[in-house]
Amino acid sequence: MLPPVAEQLEQIQHGTQEVLPLKELEAKLEASVKENRPLRIKMGFDPSAPDIHLGHAVGLRKLKTFQDLGHQIVLIVGDYTGMVGDPTGRKETRPRLTREQVDANAQTYLDQFFKVLDPDKCEVRRNGEWFGKMHFDEVMGLAARFTVARMLERDDFEKRYKAGEPISIHEFFYPIMQGYDSVVIKSDVELGGTEQKFNLLVGRTLQEAHSQPPQVILTLPILEGIDGVQRMSKSLGNYIGVTEAPRDMFGKVMSIPDNMIVRYFKLATTMHPKEVQEIEAKLKAGENPRHIKATLGKAIVAMYHDEEAAEQASEEFNRMFKGGQAPDDMPEFELEADGAGLWIIRAVTGAGLVKSNGEARRMIKQRAVRVDGE
Amino acid sequence: MLPPVAEQLEQIQHGTQEVLPLKELEAKLEASVKENRPLRIKMGFDPSAPDIHLGHAVGLRKLKTFQDLGHQIVLIVGDYTGMVGDPTGRKETRPRLTREQVDANAQTYLDQFFKVLDPDKCEVRRNGEWFGKMHFDEVMGLAARFTVARMLERDDFEKRYKAGEPISIHEFFYPIMQGYDSVVIKSDVELGGTEQKFNLLVGRTLQEAHSQPPQVILTLPILEGIDGVQRMSKSLGNYIGVTEAPRDMFGKVMSIPDNMIVRYFKLATTMHPKEVQEIEAKLKAGENPRHIKATLGKAIVAMYHDEEAAEQASEEFNRMFKGGQAPDDMPEFELEADGAGLWIIRAVTGAGLVKSNGEARRMIKQRAVRVDGE
Repeated sequence: MLPPVAEQLEQIQHGTQEVLPLKELEAKLEASVKENRPLRIKMGFDPSAPDIHLGHAVGLRKLKTFQDLGHQIVLIVGDYTGMVGDPTGRKETRPRLTREQVDANAQTYLDQFFKVLDPDKCEVRRNGEWFGKMHFDEVMGLAARFTVARMLERDDFEKRYKAGEPISIHEFFYPIMQGYDSVVIKSDVELGGTEQKFNLLVGRTLQEAHSQPPQVILTLPILEGIDGVQRMSKSLGNYIGVTEAPRDMFGKVMSIPDNMIVRYFKLATTMHPKEVQEIEAKLKAGENPRHIKATLGKAIVAMYHDEEAAEQASEEFNRMFKGGQAPDDMPEFELEADGAGLWIIRAVTGAGLVKSNGEARRMIKQRAVRVDGE
Repeated sequence: MLPPVAEQLEQIQHGTQEVLPLKELEAKLEASVKENRPLRIKMGFDPSAPDIHLGHAVGLRKLKTFQDLGHQIVLIVGDYTGMVGDPTGRKETRPRLTREQVDANAQTYLDQFFKVLDPDKCEVRRNGEWFGKMHFDEVMGLAARFTVARMLERDDFEKRYKAGEPISIHEFFYPIMQGYDSVVIKSDVELGGTEQKFNLLVGRTLQEAHSQPPQVILTLPILEGIDGVQRMSKSLGNYIGVTEAPRDMFGKVMSIPDNMIVRYFKLATTMHPKEVQEIEAKLKAGENPRHIKATLGKAIVAMYHDEEAAEQASEEFNRMFKGGQAPDDMPEFELEADGAGLWIIRAVTGAGLVKSNGEARRMIKQRAVRVDGE
């Protein structure tokens, strides 16, 4: 028995960016409750790197909401799409992956999805299942539904085209493939990041072309990476992977800029909105952001590992960067001093403790670095 | 034994628009003579209508030159391409043909090619042979070689894009398919109309991507249709088909504007350049263009039928439009007179003797129309 429509709508809309068209979602939910027929909720993943991160988890947590409400989750592993390469949000053409790379990534992905979702209530489909069989004329049949002008309306394509940066023709097929996935699995709702809006709408066009009721699209905010500037992304390297060790996970959370703290609570934890509001108030009242980041770090580690691991990671971090004691297995690193002596930022970066000079500066500012105990 | 390079070059370049790059053609011919290995000369046809016309024959006659020089002609019947629809030179997206339409057209085409070429010395390939087996990822592999910007550089795409007219994505695949045909058949030289230059160059790109020496491209002038304005084209209806009856063929030639006479001699007959020059001189000296058109009409009918048919067609035309005698099987046509009496131009057009009021006017001006013998 599915919950009443109003209750479902409240949970579904919480923390989402956009639901388009909202009226259609209402109608779909009403029909679903009336016929006691779960909706088919689609989300796709492009297995372009072997692990998923907190950015993906924003969507996974929303899928969990749908799953808990009683709807049917359909996960599309874009194994075939991965070989084409998603250009979304990237300035350059992404290199195409081999089938072997994609297959290996896909399996790792699935293992990670199920840290959040109940695997027994998920339909998992790889789009190679239908694209692998598709012939040239069918590809052209899909391509014929879209004009070059419409594709170039997509924000990133438009920017690249105007800037004179190359867009390969095969890149146009990423949204088309994603859209055709919706036709094959007959999706009622598709979830994606805000940047996916164009691609999600392509699905509506192709479903209508195939005489199907078009899917409702639901976009989710994009989580910034630990640099606090660019979206969290495997390819940009600014991510926190869901399989990372508690210590690494905690340390990465501690490295985010302060203005990201509330956003991470909202999008990367399951914390209740009221609690998040309290935290926001504390920050404004002047509480040390580092304490609050530690709470965030523990909450995140606890989600993907457990409470104990979270506590340990926090303690070790304190010992290392605050308590002045060396961690259990402190690594050693030799630096070559050049004529000008040893520049401390370069020392921290060079030792691999942080990824960039900017991060090093932040750590030093936060008094996380000591030279000979001082 | 292939003729000397200089002799070949002279014949090949006669009446062509462009040979690109000429140096590469020389090198290919030299290697060909040295190794006594014929070059592979490619020309493709899109069987979008069931018959070919004098416009196509411009290329076929050039292929005949290569064939007579001893090279290997490879005719590509674009049966698969036809299903995509060639947008070249058209303002609108051409409708895609069904396989049945394309297959039927293709066979009729071949029958007509061999009115000009020796079938025993032609390799005929249908590109469905390779595209019919091609899968999505291979299609993407080809598409990845070209940028959207490069495609939009093509003259007609650029115009349509700038004018805000829709270009379907599948249209980009026409040049790509044509280019890949060159890879499969390993062409040394590809012939095409001047408007085909972009497509022919795509073949070079794909051959290089497949580690083949790129083909030389040879473009031929475009023959205008019987309207003397737009290119001769099946879809525009301004063509003279190579299978048309002698009388129709002759009549259509007689309907071309006078400023097209010399051009038709050059591109649609096998008349020697010297003879064409003499005709040009006669026209300038004031000789009645209708006499010269009759010579042209007879030359063309003789090419596709025989001398006797040409003579008969000419005599019948004279009887009908000049001699004042009724033709053997004169058709009758009843016209409804309206209040204003009978407008002579409308009578000639309405009877189906000519296709347009403009043509009717020309015929009347040339004294080809009589009312009750006057």
